[in-house]
Amino acid sequence: MLNERLKVIEVGPRDGFQGIGPFIPTEEKIAYLERLVAAGLTEIEIGSFVSARALPQMADTPELLTACARIQGVTPRVLVPNAKYARRALDHGAQNLVFVLSVSESHNRNNVRRHPDESADEYLEIVALLPDGVKMRLDLATSFDCPFEGRIESDATLRMIEKLAPALPEAEICPCDTTGKAVPDQVGQLFRDASQSFPDVKRWALHAHDTYGLGLANVFSAWQAGVRIMDASFGGLGGCPFAPGATGNVATEDLVWMFERMGVETGVDLDKLIPLSSAAEKIPGGQTGGRVRDALTKKGDCVA
Amino acid sequence: MLNERLKVIEVGPRDGFQGIGPFIPTEEKIAYLERLVAAGLTEIEIGSFVSARALPQMADTPELLTACARIQGVTPRVLVPNAKYARRALDHGAQNLVFVLSVSESHNRNNVRRHPDESADEYLEIVALLPDGVKMRLDLATSFDCPFEGRIESDATLRMIEKLAPALPEAEICPCDTTGKAVPDQVGQLFRDASQSFPDVKRWALHAHDTYGLGLANVFSAWQAGVRIMDASFGGLGGCPFAPGATGNVATEDLVWMFERMGVETGVDLDKLIPLSSAAEKIPGGQTGGRVRDALTKKGDCVA
Repeated sequence: MLNERLKVIEVGPRDGFQGIGPFIPTEEKIAYLERLVAAGLTEIEIGSFVSARALPQMADTPELLTACARIQGVTPRVLVPNAKYARRALDHGAQNLVFVLSVSESHNRNNVRRHPDESADEYLEIVALLPDGVKMRLDLATSFDCPFEGRIESDATLRMIEKLAPALPEAEICPCDTTGKAVPDQVGQLFRDASQSFPDVKRWALHAHDTYGLGLANVFSAWQAGVRIMDASFGGLGGCPFAPGATGNVATEDLVWMFERMGVETGVDLDKLIPLSSAAEKIPGGQTGGRVRDALTKKGDCVA
Repeated sequence: MLNERLKVIEVGPRDGFQGIGPFIPTEEKIAYLERLVAAGLTEIEIGSFVSARALPQMADTPELLTACARIQGVTPRVLVPNAKYARRALDHGAQNLVFVLSVSESHNRNNVRRHPDESADEYLEIVALLPDGVKMRLDLATSFDCPFEGRIESDATLRMIEKLAPALPEAEICPCDTTGKAVPDQVGQLFRDASQSFPDVKRWALHAHDTYGLGLANVFSAWQAGVRIMDASFGGLGGCPFAPGATGNVATEDLVWMFERMGVETGVDLDKLIPLSSAAEKIPGGQTGGRVRDALTKKGDCVA
């Protein structure tokens, strides 16, 4: 796999931070962004334009977006749940929007009080108002499993892609394993089916959770199916505040470790990332995961 | 993958227990064996015939072997490091021997004070003295990576198989990821090369560690390459006392969770296994791992 390259999207500042109760001071968030970029993680989901009442931790996303103008090399992404907030993000100069909807009705209603088809219409509305040069990512939550409905058959996810991909084939499309219950054969099959059915889509991504220890297995399976963009969260921070038990994005350091050892370039400097992941462990209210941090920083008990 | 079946070899009582300092009372070990069998884990590495000075935790393996005669359905396996101890195990009525040698010289010398070729000769000696009906497993430690020498190229492992497989093609052959640093493309490639080069060998197995979070990714890759026998340790107990930092076999409950969700039968009852894995957490001196236990028994912080 030499000369292959993986694009890692760091989602810790959004998916990792959003579920943390105690407010992380804005200056501290900016310091994390600077250090993530210094470690080579230049594409970062920095926050969400959402109701500050629903997700108070994300209330300073506009300030973070402004601060990113001073961080060399960063490409900040912001999440938006509907057209209203997409407009607000664009007003604040966002150049990379992430729109999220859930494939399963109950999760989408729980999340944004809308039927998935209504959210799909919001996506089409956003695409229609997108200024030139602004890039789009479409996150499809509960693409594999839903905390309320259980396993999601790939037909449901493929139907949503069929409905939305043609409006903007250059958008990045990212099935998300919201609950962490996806299994690798299921992940590989979805991406093989999707890329065959929608050849105009060139940018497939996976958002994996490690709740059941399957994060890297699913990432590897997606990689085999041709996916070259993966989400990850430093320290394995994260989870969905609306998905019971969905703690733990796949840890960025675990993902980078695996790919670098497979000879795949990620551009990430593990030596700079590991201290950041260790710092994540100490964020009040944070919940970390992953194995590589401990494996590299703690001595094993079994010394010869 | 419907109608496929995986054979899980439970190695907790050997690989999981051996590195634990405080002696686990024999009656307690027997109770674990009984409960593992009741959970459907019938093939169990119950211990080692080794120097009690080197591994005091394994000193009661003969008693455990005797006790297994009273546990319905169990197939006990015992590990032996050389011909002397193989004879002793056979004298005690062992019907399933596991011989281990390391592919890398420094690890093998560290482990058994012999060059790998000397250990290979021991294996051939054991094969020659094997009574009818006694089954053999060949563990190849450091097949992917060595704590002293780093990455092991597949040629070294394949050469060892070439040397040993013809003597007993019906033996189970198990490359072991001693350090947990194997990566899934490497694992898949080794098994594809090995099964192509040695078509007479029908029983390939993988022994994966989760030290760097890659346990299930490596297991999945081996599965794709046709491997249908996997080692695992309840609660993720374990590690090699001679491999610095090599803590954590892949957890049996994580492995079973993955395969059952892929529609692959394992014969293991997770509801019975999880309490056992939780008990493993409380063994004095034990070090557990895995994610499924927590995911199934603890409520997440993010409730809708």
